[in-house]
Amino acid sequence: MIIACLDLEGVLIPEIWVNFAHKTGIEELKLTTRDIPDYDVLMKKRLAILDERQYALKDIEEVISQLNPLEGAKDFLNQLREEFQVIILSDTFYQFAMPLMKQLGYPTLFCHNLEINDQGKITNYCLRMQDQKREAVKRLKELNFKVVAAGDSYNDTTMLSEAHEGILFCPPQNVIEEFPQFPVTKNYSELLATFREASKKIKN
Amino acid sequence: MIIACLDLEGVLIPEIWVNFAHKTGIEELKLTTRDIPDYDVLMKKRLAILDERQYALKDIEEVISQLNPLEGAKDFLNQLREEFQVIILSDTFYQFAMPLMKQLGYPTLFCHNLEINDQGKITNYCLRMQDQKREAVKRLKELNFKVVAAGDSYNDTTMLSEAHEGILFCPPQNVIEEFPQFPVTKNYSELLATFREASKKIKN
Repeated sequence: MIIACLDLEGVLIPEIWVNFAHKTGIEELKLTTRDIPDYDVLMKKRLAILDERQYALKDIEEVISQLNPLEGAKDFLNQLREEFQVIILSDTFYQFAMPLMKQLGYPTLFCHNLEINDQGKITNYCLRMQDQKREAVKRLKELNFKVVAAGDSYNDTTMLSEAHEGILFCPPQNVIEEFPQFPVTKNYSELLATFREASKKIKN
Repeated sequence: MIIACLDLEGVLIPEIWVNFAHKTGIEELKLTTRDIPDYDVLMKKRLAILDERQYALKDIEEVISQLNPLEGAKDFLNQLREEFQVIILSDTFYQFAMPLMKQLGYPTLFCHNLEINDQGKITNYCLRMQDQKREAVKRLKELNFKVVAAGDSYNDTTMLSEAHEGILFCPPQNVIEEFPQFPVTKNYSELLATFREASKKIKN
């Protein structure tokens, strides 16, 4: 049996911070690592904004629960789960992702945690480990699994390289150019077909 | 976030071989490791019987798809998936388990494989690795997860010991006596409550 590792944001669900910014109208939350390359500085800024605007966890969950998975994502995921064991590897936070995971039928998710105080306020963020996507694929291989991984962006490429087969899904042009070794898929039907091809290749 | 590792047979679904024997009326398939302690001898005998009776994989899948998860298992599992990331750790084979996993909404399953030839006949079995339940818990801990594990029988106890917290579910008396360190639960509502208690204990 092969494990299918999937990135979350941009693959099954929209970018959470960007869409949260849209829903709440908080322009500053649209900043990404392209604007502030230091992830720690960016996250601290985001959390400071939430604090200023007095957003507690439950308010955020409420906004996020109004977001939807990408069109066709649930059907794609259900088909994938029939043929592979699926684990979602994401650098988001459980508290943000869970309302959307519910809509996807709770596939298993490995990601990070926010620190929440007794009043339900977000006080900090906590990365479970560095390069957790790649580390997870490594551990799955040590458990004698074969792994096919798919993701859309730069932070997925170590996971794609570590897996027996890696697949890009709707990636930006610079990622396509820098990682020509990975097949590029542009919709769920191509992604599913490429998962099946990769699986055949591994078995032979 | 805490990973909940669950055994499958006896916890969420009935014992597959025993129930397959009932459905097909093949008495010899009711033998277990209590009758033939050497697992390899037992499995080879089971596969020889299937071969004699001309059961191909699709016939077996058909019989197994008529089995159902244990009463209340699906609701229990759905609740668990809301609160934990769930991985099922089982020593069964994917080919036997998948019809039942479908009924359970495809939780992620780590187990073993049967070798199937081009004619769809089972030719051999292949354990992915020895003591795979314990090894999986070890690797999850290396990924900085906390793990709570639950199972019903002897072959779960290494996984229960390796986890941060272990729970027994409807175990036989000899397991209760030999492993007094694990709390014993007798229905899903007790099991869920004990998962929640274990989770609190780990966080404090």
